[in-house]
Amino acid sequence: MQPVQLSNLTNPDPALAEPMPVQIYRDLLSAIHEGRLADGARLPSSRAAAQALGLSRTTLNTAYDLLRAEGVLTVRQGAAPRVTAPQMQAAPEPGRGPPLSTRGQGFAHNPRSASYATAQGVMTPGVPDETLFPRDEWAVALRRAGRAMHGDVAAYGEPHGIAALRKVLAERLAADRGLRADPGRIIITTSTQASVSLLALTLTDPGDVTAMEDPGYLGARAAFTMAALNIRPLPVDAEGVRVDTVPPEARLIYVSPSNQYPLGVRLSLHRRMELIERARAQRALILEDDYGSEFLWRGREIATLAAHGPGEVAYLGSAAKVLMPSLRIGWMVVPDNLVDPLRAAQRNLGITANLHAQLALSDFMGSGRYRTHLRRIARAYEARGQALTKALEGLPGLTVRAPDGGVQLAAVFDPPRDELPVMQALAVKGFRPARLSTMSETGLTGLVIGFADATPARISRFRDVLADALAQIKTAG
Amino acid sequence: MQPVQLSNLTNPDPALAEPMPVQIYRDLLSAIHEGRLADGARLPSSRAAAQALGLSRTTLNTAYDLLRAEGVLTVRQGAAPRVTAPQMQAAPEPGRGPPLSTRGQGFAHNPRSASYATAQGVMTPGVPDETLFPRDEWAVALRRAGRAMHGDVAAYGEPHGIAALRKVLAERLAADRGLRADPGRIIITTSTQASVSLLALTLTDPGDVTAMEDPGYLGARAAFTMAALNIRPLPVDAEGVRVDTVPPEARLIYVSPSNQYPLGVRLSLHRRMELIERARAQRALILEDDYGSEFLWRGREIATLAAHGPGEVAYLGSAAKVLMPSLRIGWMVVPDNLVDPLRAAQRNLGITANLHAQLALSDFMGSGRYRTHLRRIARAYEARGQALTKALEGLPGLTVRAPDGGVQLAAVFDPPRDELPVMQALAVKGFRPARLSTMSETGLTGLVIGFADATPARISRFRDVLADALAQIKTAG
Repeated sequence: MQPVQLSNLTNPDPALAEPMPVQIYRDLLSAIHEGRLADGARLPSSRAAAQALGLSRTTLNTAYDLLRAEGVLTVRQGAAPRVTAPQMQAAPEPGRGPPLSTRGQGFAHNPRSASYATAQGVMTPGVPDETLFPRDEWAVALRRAGRAMHGDVAAYGEPHGIAALRKVLAERLAADRGLRADPGRIIITTSTQASVSLLALTLTDPGDVTAMEDPGYLGARAAFTMAALNIRPLPVDAEGVRVDTVPPEARLIYVSPSNQYPLGVRLSLHRRMELIERARAQRALILEDDYGSEFLWRGREIATLAAHGPGEVAYLGSAAKVLMPSLRIGWMVVPDNLVDPLRAAQRNLGITANLHAQLALSDFMGSGRYRTHLRRIARAYEARGQALTKALEGLPGLTVRAPDGGVQLAAVFDPPRDELPVMQALAVKGFRPARLSTMSETGLTGLVIGFADATPARISRFRDVLADALAQIKTAG
Repeated sequence: MQPVQLSNLTNPDPALAEPMPVQIYRDLLSAIHEGRLADGARLPSSRAAAQALGLSRTTLNTAYDLLRAEGVLTVRQGAAPRVTAPQMQAAPEPGRGPPLSTRGQGFAHNPRSASYATAQGVMTPGVPDETLFPRDEWAVALRRAGRAMHGDVAAYGEPHGIAALRKVLAERLAADRGLRADPGRIIITTSTQASVSLLALTLTDPGDVTAMEDPGYLGARAAFTMAALNIRPLPVDAEGVRVDTVPPEARLIYVSPSNQYPLGVRLSLHRRMELIERARAQRALILEDDYGSEFLWRGREIATLAAHGPGEVAYLGSAAKVLMPSLRIGWMVVPDNLVDPLRAAQRNLGITANLHAQLALSDFMGSGRYRTHLRRIARAYEARGQALTKALEGLPGLTVRAPDGGVQLAAVFDPPRDELPVMQALAVKGFRPARLSTMSETGLTGLVIGFADATPARISRFRDVLADALAQIKTAG
């Protein structure tokens, strides 16, 4: 048997960063794995190979040594080097691969795909205006954080959030939301989504009952579906969520009392008290999503549920709407007895926030610039929300409620009608509202429309496209 | 009934940031909730209250309006305002609160608490040397990222990682690890811990069998415990993990082939091929933890398992050891069929990395400075690892293997003995190694010792304390 021609198998390039012997080694190893160099094949001696390839003998010797160390080449004095290749049994079948489990199918459930008609577009609910992000201040704070030494927290210390941030948050929550909580009860996560998932997976077993507002936040629905829970809808009326409909077996009760998502109603105080009593009586946990409360332009002074029921409520907030979703910082204030278990669970799951972002947020929130920023975005969003409400109020077949805060509003189709043609008409013009029906199990239809980026021109175009679509497309049933 | 004295209930302070009416409102609301103001109680008229408190009538009127809006005060013309308080049924019982579920007990399992004798200390395994972190370069990159506009990715775009980072990672993995993968197969997470958890929860059901190296990474054990899996140990010998012991029903097989954690062995090529064949035959997924491979000082040229079995292997890496754990950036290269489900699951769980850190990492990895950095830390860690090995090699009752990379080594007690007194003796001197027995189910005892921060003085003191402890404390059994 003739030695194989190495020049068919390897073509090392001195311009590459990788050393030439390693290039040769890799090429030959690939050839072995792919069967182009079979078990027992003879290679030329390092001298002959060096000559054929125009390289030094040292280069070839080194490459052969690497192959020898790998156990795929036998080199004996006076004999040609021989390939001793492990043989693969079968080629991989394309498109196959390890299957998802039953649990995995729940984890991989994507409720958002049904909610939007397009992947890109403006006036998406839940998205703040990036141009209002305090970029220069953030950049300075990040730079400062990046240059400092941090000791234990640079490594694995405080995966539940750095002490400085938890302290500033405790101060802000006390001052702005009437919520007095020891920083030890605060847990930093990556988002409200992460907080809800962490609580759902830790406090329930598959098949347990959870109650949530209907319509309600898709992310909470996704978390509960992932946790294989039995989701019971709680209707929302003019006073907020109907507390009397909470099933007695519910383990979790998800609500957004300060600014119901997406309807924008505020929960009355009587219902707040009733809700806390129910949770206490049935040892359920209330998940109080207080998103965007920092720039509520009405009703900000109402204290949170967590202020009234520290043992019954997990308070959820995040930097997503006041600053930027991609900072990936959220927080929870949780009952005392859940602190240690949740810290362990978040570490096991790897739901941990970036250090430099936490430091920048501590800096920014602890300074007077934060208030200035809040005032600025609250003014902007209030104006845009009101302009959008005003533009849509006259349209027939649509019920719009003026929002008290947040960055989106719900436009309910009245009577109900098929959302998809309306969504499609808006999508082709670059608009990306969400379908209200995907947030509800009660037959509600309509649009959830973001207004953070709603310029007057966009509002006017949006209104025209929507009016046309509503006029042309028949109501359902 | 006399009107209540407001001065006993509220004491507004004009120096506070919160407006005076809101302060009064909050104080009275608290009094109502705490029962100090009972249902039906009469308040003074706003005029009388203003006079008593020395404030303007407008201030009091506004405070009363807020209470009225909240539904807890009835104000009628010509009559004293009356409290209409919702009554809470019972005070919270301290120490109670919503209970953990059966699933939650697994999620809240904390294997690390048993692994260390102290919460602080030096020479902890898995922790890099913070002084080697490229602070100035990172600070500049962060500042640049902070100042830029990012569009969709500033909001909720690409939760599986920004395209720029996935592209640079694909290039680096191809050049440094022989792993050619489309960036579409790369998923950015927050850590290797997060990657393992995501895979475990998505690919298995409770009670499924998973195989893992023994001894092996605590984080993987935590993830599998969380997922309620049946963990089967795979012994490790001089060629690495014993592939012949993989149970045929295993759904996941966790290994660290380039530098076995914590023993430091490299998996032979024959076993690599055997492992991939097994996984393919039983449709299991191999979790290839390639941690710290960027600065292996021997064996770096060996291609990864994922290069040989792209459909059978999820390749796991992170920035924790080359840069800093608290950046919270990890990555996976996964089989094609798992990309979409894992993206959905990571979004549902909120396992998403910070944008600015991702941008800084793309910048840094894509530049020549990255190679310089790697050379620098590889040299430092090699010297420290060798110095520690040398210092420990002579000690009786201890087997130490010179590491080929990583930032820790295992010192096995031979014969086995109780670790706790040894750990305790080291802890009082400020050392924080880990207990080898917590990483094993096979009776192995010893220490896992970090050397990233092992200065010559520390090594010498560590050796002395350890030698004393080994001499004084009897072997087990």
